[in-house]
Amino acid sequence: MRILISNDDGIFSEGIYVLAKSLINLGEVIVIAPDSEKSATGHAITMHHPLRVSRTKFFDLDIEAYSVSGTPADCVKLAVEAILKDRRPDIVVSGINNGPNLGTDVIYSGTVSAAVEAAILEIPSIAISMARSKFETFEHAGNFVTKLVEDIFEKGLYNNKELNETIINVNYPTVSEEEIRGVKVTTLGIRKYQNAFVERKDPRGNSYYWMSGEVMDLEQNESSDVVALRNNYISVTPIHFDLTNFKTYEYLKKLDLEKTR
Amino acid sequence: MRILISNDDGIFSEGIYVLAKSLINLGEVIVIAPDSEKSATGHAITMHHPLRVSRTKFFDLDIEAYSVSGTPADCVKLAVEAILKDRRPDIVVSGINNGPNLGTDVIYSGTVSAAVEAAILEIPSIAISMARSKFETFEHAGNFVTKLVEDIFEKGLYNNKELNETIINVNYPTVSEEEIRGVKVTTLGIRKYQNAFVERKDPRGNSYYWMSGEVMDLEQNESSDVVALRNNYISVTPIHFDLTNFKTYEYLKKLDLEKTR
Repeated sequence: MRILISNDDGIFSEGIYVLAKSLINLGEVIVIAPDSEKSATGHAITMHHPLRVSRTKFFDLDIEAYSVSGTPADCVKLAVEAILKDRRPDIVVSGINNGPNLGTDVIYSGTVSAAVEAAILEIPSIAISMARSKFETFEHAGNFVTKLVEDIFEKGLYNNKELNETIINVNYPTVSEEEIRGVKVTTLGIRKYQNAFVERKDPRGNSYYWMSGEVMDLEQNESSDVVALRNNYISVTPIHFDLTNFKTYEYLKKLDLEKTR
Repeated sequence: MRILISNDDGIFSEGIYVLAKSLINLGEVIVIAPDSEKSATGHAITMHHPLRVSRTKFFDLDIEAYSVSGTPADCVKLAVEAILKDRRPDIVVSGINNGPNLGTDVIYSGTVSAAVEAAILEIPSIAISMARSKFETFEHAGNFVTKLVEDIFEKGLYNNKELNETIINVNYPTVSEEEIRGVKVTTLGIRKYQNAFVERKDPRGNSYYWMSGEVMDLEQNESSDVVALRNNYISVTPIHFDLTNFKTYEYLKKLDLEKTR
């Protein structure tokens, strides 16, 4: 099995190392990731600058690794279409992100976007995120994803071609392994922030703004990833990239938009 | 009516000027847009640098305008949460993008992401795109969107609260007004590219890559925006930001993922 690993925290982050160290047990692992932190880059791609690729040593592991001067989506696109053109990956795993990627927030997430790009290229993919604490490490999250990849392929966990276009978004709770209550298949919850910006003044009296904001405590659907994590479950959310809003599609079709013209 | 305008081509692009010039007939227009081109930035936001905001003249129009050192999503977030905190916009219109935003490509689009950010903040929004040619100008596209905004509010075109979380993604064909055959409510089609990267060598013999690629001629759903544009219809696609894949959600729930742990 050939596994491509990427992330948005950069190729020298702890999460990607732990992930690779665990996945190497399943087959050939290739790491192609941004050369520096690219959090919150969403699905940005680089069209107006060229991308630099450097073959690099990957910590103490004997793994083929490349750092790329681009976004997570760039890394996966470039990997599949150029660097690994004749060695198509069987799966793409993105992470382990340092911090959760829950609910509405996935739309901003570089980690998830790397997995979405894989799905666009028709490769199964998983994004894995965990808020690392002083006491909890990424190891258990890495082991869980490794088992998930194994189940997908070796045990044929889902032999469903639709799943080729499904991204599995996993969030791992920040508690000890004993405190984890299980695995829940979830929907995306709602994440909203208050006090989103902090205004500061520069020495010349001009304003500038820092994005900030605290997560609001909102009512959530019981099926949501936010609720699962809150209750110490591992959340597994299937996501896709078809943004068509079918609910309002039927509604809009009934309106006579021709009159608007 | 208070209308916030943004885009991803930058505040000094032709499309945003044409859009503002048309929308000013409906009420108060405020332009808050990136200080330079931010195409293909997807839903990136700026968390690790502060955002600079400059009040600016806007061509020959008497419009309140600000340029922001960030992405289209930053502009809308900062507008709603800070600059216009006490003057919440009734609608956000993003564009007119120079180039289409069809099918899968909307996920990369800064223009669409500005509108998506508005919807996350519960403000109705429209994204408008058009491939401008030597012969066709943005004027007709601007006029169409202006009529659409008018219909939404003055004629109560859709009094449906779900539509608050719907983004209307409009693509305008690159033909003369006479050649336009009508308006179609559409779904997102498929856009894939071949020869996605071009490799070059620098003077020291090191490789770098340009993102490139030609659109592939794929079979499309008849209801898609791609087909509508091809047949000279204006496409109106309702999109949303809930990426949950409900089709595979039910399927995954039936699997015993607890065993994976």
